[in-house]
Amino acid sequence: MSEFLDRRAFLQAGLRWSLVMPALPGLAAEGAPAPQSTGFSNYGQPAPSERHVIRLIGSNPRMPGNGVSWTPLEALEGILTPSGLHFERHHNGIPEIDPQHFALLIHGMVQQPLRFDLTDLLRYPRQSRALFLECGGNSNAGWHAEPMQKPVGAFHGLVSCSEWTGVPLRLLLAEAGIDPRARWVIATGADTAATEVSLPLAKLQDDALLALYQNGERLRLENGYPLRLILPGWEGVRQIKWLTRLEVTDRPAMSRNETAQYTQLLPDGRARQFDFVMGPKSLITSPSHGQRLPGAGLYEVSGLAWSGHGAVAAVDVSQDGGRHWVPARLEAPVLDRCFTRFRAAWQWDGTPAVLQSRVRDQLGNLQPGRAALIAERGRNGYFHYNAVVSWAVDGDGAVRHVYA
Amino acid sequence: MSEFLDRRAFLQAGLRWSLVMPALPGLAAEGAPAPQSTGFSNYGQPAPSERHVIRLIGSNPRMPGNGVSWTPLEALEGILTPSGLHFERHHNGIPEIDPQHFALLIHGMVQQPLRFDLTDLLRYPRQSRALFLECGGNSNAGWHAEPMQKPVGAFHGLVSCSEWTGVPLRLLLAEAGIDPRARWVIATGADTAATEVSLPLAKLQDDALLALYQNGERLRLENGYPLRLILPGWEGVRQIKWLTRLEVTDRPAMSRNETAQYTQLLPDGRARQFDFVMGPKSLITSPSHGQRLPGAGLYEVSGLAWSGHGAVAAVDVSQDGGRHWVPARLEAPVLDRCFTRFRAAWQWDGTPAVLQSRVRDQLGNLQPGRAALIAERGRNGYFHYNAVVSWAVDGDGAVRHVYA
Repeated sequence: MSEFLDRRAFLQAGLRWSLVMPALPGLAAEGAPAPQSTGFSNYGQPAPSERHVIRLIGSNPRMPGNGVSWTPLEALEGILTPSGLHFERHHNGIPEIDPQHFALLIHGMVQQPLRFDLTDLLRYPRQSRALFLECGGNSNAGWHAEPMQKPVGAFHGLVSCSEWTGVPLRLLLAEAGIDPRARWVIATGADTAATEVSLPLAKLQDDALLALYQNGERLRLENGYPLRLILPGWEGVRQIKWLTRLEVTDRPAMSRNETAQYTQLLPDGRARQFDFVMGPKSLITSPSHGQRLPGAGLYEVSGLAWSGHGAVAAVDVSQDGGRHWVPARLEAPVLDRCFTRFRAAWQWDGTPAVLQSRVRDQLGNLQPGRAALIAERGRNGYFHYNAVVSWAVDGDGAVRHVYA
Repeated sequence: MSEFLDRRAFLQAGLRWSLVMPALPGLAAEGAPAPQSTGFSNYGQPAPSERHVIRLIGSNPRMPGNGVSWTPLEALEGILTPSGLHFERHHNGIPEIDPQHFALLIHGMVQQPLRFDLTDLLRYPRQSRALFLECGGNSNAGWHAEPMQKPVGAFHGLVSCSEWTGVPLRLLLAEAGIDPRARWVIATGADTAATEVSLPLAKLQDDALLALYQNGERLRLENGYPLRLILPGWEGVRQIKWLTRLEVTDRPAMSRNETAQYTQLLPDGRARQFDFVMGPKSLITSPSHGQRLPGAGLYEVSGLAWSGHGAVAAVDVSQDGGRHWVPARLEAPVLDRCFTRFRAAWQWDGTPAVLQSRVRDQLGNLQPGRAALIAERGRNGYFHYNAVVSWAVDGDGAVRHVYA
């Protein structure tokens, strides 16, 4: 009988994994060729045998520099994404900015316009936070009529999680002196598209960071070097890369990326605009599409959960397409607006199953089922797809994406 | 007057940093050359302007493959070290192991010897933990009669911190069935030196991990690909890279790395052996040796603290060489046997100062001053140097290493 095991059974189950080959005489690795030795390096790279683990690029040949690359979530563990595998979404290429000539301008409805070069910014107090960052268009294949048969990273991999370090923006806004009538800030990137978005001033005075570092080292070019705006829990397009200008104002800019794009078309034909917060979402990364279970037995079901509203409170898993749910174990640390890794022990009896996960965040927001999401949002959606993901495990162990 | 500021003053101080240039007309970055645009990449690399941030290699030309590379701690932020900059200490090169031919053998005083290939190991339950990893020989220049004038990474950079993911070793030991008379485990690496150490069985039955992943992706070659033994809080040499054999036994092997090396010679001529746990340690990474403060004013003092005994409980900082101490702020998350980042706001009046930090861990262990360490351990020490580090700030803002 397939079943999820409780924690005590899980520990006892360690004795029943039955995966182990009978012992062989002699030392390990006998018969293997003697390994080559290599030397020290100034900056390490992935192991040669693992260089198939890459971000897959999807770009538009008619619009060079416009496209995405996906984080291969199915190949990764823990909660932090290596910077080399952080997803990309660029509207018009990656500028290579000379840090000596870079400046951030804060102007508009302020008492004193201010200009900061990097030397200035690097002297300010800093804060580090581990935060997920998700493209508003992530998982949009979920709106398709038929379930897409691709690995989890090529479906949901426009989300990554990093430790960002930077200057709390509220310090700089306070120095500039905000006009009490101001309500919005228009943020602009130094890319050739001059990507521009409008942001409520209150968020920028709350927890926004001017990130200079990602995962310990200075930002990568493709993540906004030398300066990226980080808005914990908000959709990626708002977290302007190569940030060079913040204009304080009393109204939004109504730019392309907040009118023609990144809005939610609803069933009645109206569109939801300024939908900033990424909803609660989870998915099982193992087993997941394209894997094949070698046979009945004990498996660890493992995945990622996050919510733009706060910390993850609980993740439940199901093996029968959502009819029954059992709690998964959340692995510490469970941090505010960060990936949380969940794990559950699963005894598979070799008969077909449908694995699902469902997250609830600390504010009580529950990840919706797909039918509920479509009932609310209709079939014309593109952004902010966060429905429960279903993986069918067939009798032969093959795992594929289904709607359930 | 130089002073550390309390938290409330620190927040108000945001308004007094006085680092900001007068606003200039026009947009930011005027006069800068138009940036080049680059495209998507499968695996990202550091920004070209930041490629001076590397691990410095110190190797012995008469013993190829024997040496170290240091993590540039002074250039990094947050608590996690990018894998490409994780320190290295190799005794005889880096083997490039074919994962298809790799196996781990558990044998000796067990009911059933067991052999695991990677496919087996990858099916076991996993655990992820963020942990520091420090070479027993880190900071050994602190024993020198004169303070070494090198950047903090080239002095203390044989320590790094990663999120490790792997299989709890206790599960495998339980499957093998341990003879009740067993007390030790001899662990062997697949490097050409066949590096071998003896480990108390109790630690391996407690929190040891068989790490398959580092910072989300599979191990790098230089960190033990495909399998590394992780022993939270213990010295690096025990955390065998390229782990291929665990022999359960009733006595230690008395191998070279636990007799001739990695022992503590004491003032009375005896040596302390099997000194596994890395003691409480902290250091200020900014300001630190080689930096120059541009003038009197407000600065953030920031650094790292850790202890092999548990979580960091408190870090104090001093500006007068240890006569007065004030608490630094510990940045969340504060995790068991992980780097903790501390920060303090410091008003420098432009007169000479001596900056120090001192950590206390959750078991009450206090980082010793240098005089106390030498009084206990003598002047013949080499390993396990964890004394308070002192940075003199001269009147011209130059920062250098001193003993104080």
